[in-house]
Amino acid sequence: MNRGLVQIFTGDGKGKTSAALGAMLRALGQGLRVYIVFFMKGDYPYGESRIMSQLPNVEMARFGLATFCDPNNVKPKEKEQARLALAAAREATLSGKYDLVVLDEVNVAVAWKLVDLDEVIRLIKDKPANVGLILTGRSADIKLVQLADLVTEMLKIKHPYDEGVVAQKGFEY
Amino acid sequence: MNRGLVQIFTGDGKGKTSAALGAMLRALGQGLRVYIVFFMKGDYPYGESRIMSQLPNVEMARFGLATFCDPNNVKPKEKEQARLALAAAREATLSGKYDLVVLDEVNVAVAWKLVDLDEVIRLIKDKPANVGLILTGRSADIKLVQLADLVTEMLKIKHPYDEGVVAQKGFEY
Repeated sequence: MNRGLVQIFTGDGKGKTSAALGAMLRALGQGLRVYIVFFMKGDYPYGESRIMSQLPNVEMARFGLATFCDPNNVKPKEKEQARLALAAAREATLSGKYDLVVLDEVNVAVAWKLVDLDEVIRLIKDKPANVGLILTGRSADIKLVQLADLVTEMLKIKHPYDEGVVAQKGFEY
Repeated sequence: MNRGLVQIFTGDGKGKTSAALGAMLRALGQGLRVYIVFFMKGDYPYGESRIMSQLPNVEMARFGLATFCDPNNVKPKEKEQARLALAAAREATLSGKYDLVVLDEVNVAVAWKLVDLDEVIRLIKDKPANVGLILTGRSADIKLVQLADLVTEMLKIKHPYDEGVVAQKGFEY
């Protein structure tokens, strides 16, 4: 049995994208093929992108601007980037070339209306049964939670930012 | 600034070990060196172990039995394995050879009294300032939470096991 699950990692705690990357690593370890789309991180030099280029069977696509967008002042270019990200995810999901497709920060893209909720729902409904999807980002829409097979909320119990510690190279990005 | 943080991923939701693996991937991407100790998973062929052997700068050690132990009937051999795992983590942390040490399922090992809470506290207090630690597993002890810099609780909102779906090769293990 190898049915593709729809998994959501949401909440305000740390570990959503990390959990998706870890799930990707497990899938790769099983010889599965993975496509990962970053919706909102632009071309910021995250550590994971360097190491991922050394892994087999993983394709990566990055969209969005380098600076996180302001939900109260969304620029047309940001909307366009998010739309392209979702189109890339859809194409990968339906291509037959991947067993797992990760849509990183798609929940935020939906919450901020950068992409249409209905388009994400359509992707979930149209996906081949054996293709798994992972949707990350805080503020996951309740309709997506209802459609998903597995939902984890990352709850922030304690975060160093609260105490004024700045982001750690290699740990936070 | 590159101070090593103490991070805890706990809670009953999915994604704790995955988040640790993702954090490891990010660290490797920055050229950092990682040591990861599995406390309780024995030699079960998890996908991640195969792919990790292909990554640079990561050393892995596995302890514990293949079957998960019964907290109400802990065998001496299980206690011995957990003790060896903590000793390996301690040695790696103090060795100067690693920037990040992951103690996978150590929280459970503490909760089930396979290892001494005070020994884990001692490891955190003795660690070099620039070495990061990640502790995973449900039921993290409050004393560890107090000592940690960053704590995330993975909350199970929805899990396919609840609806009778069996573990998916490449997704769950």
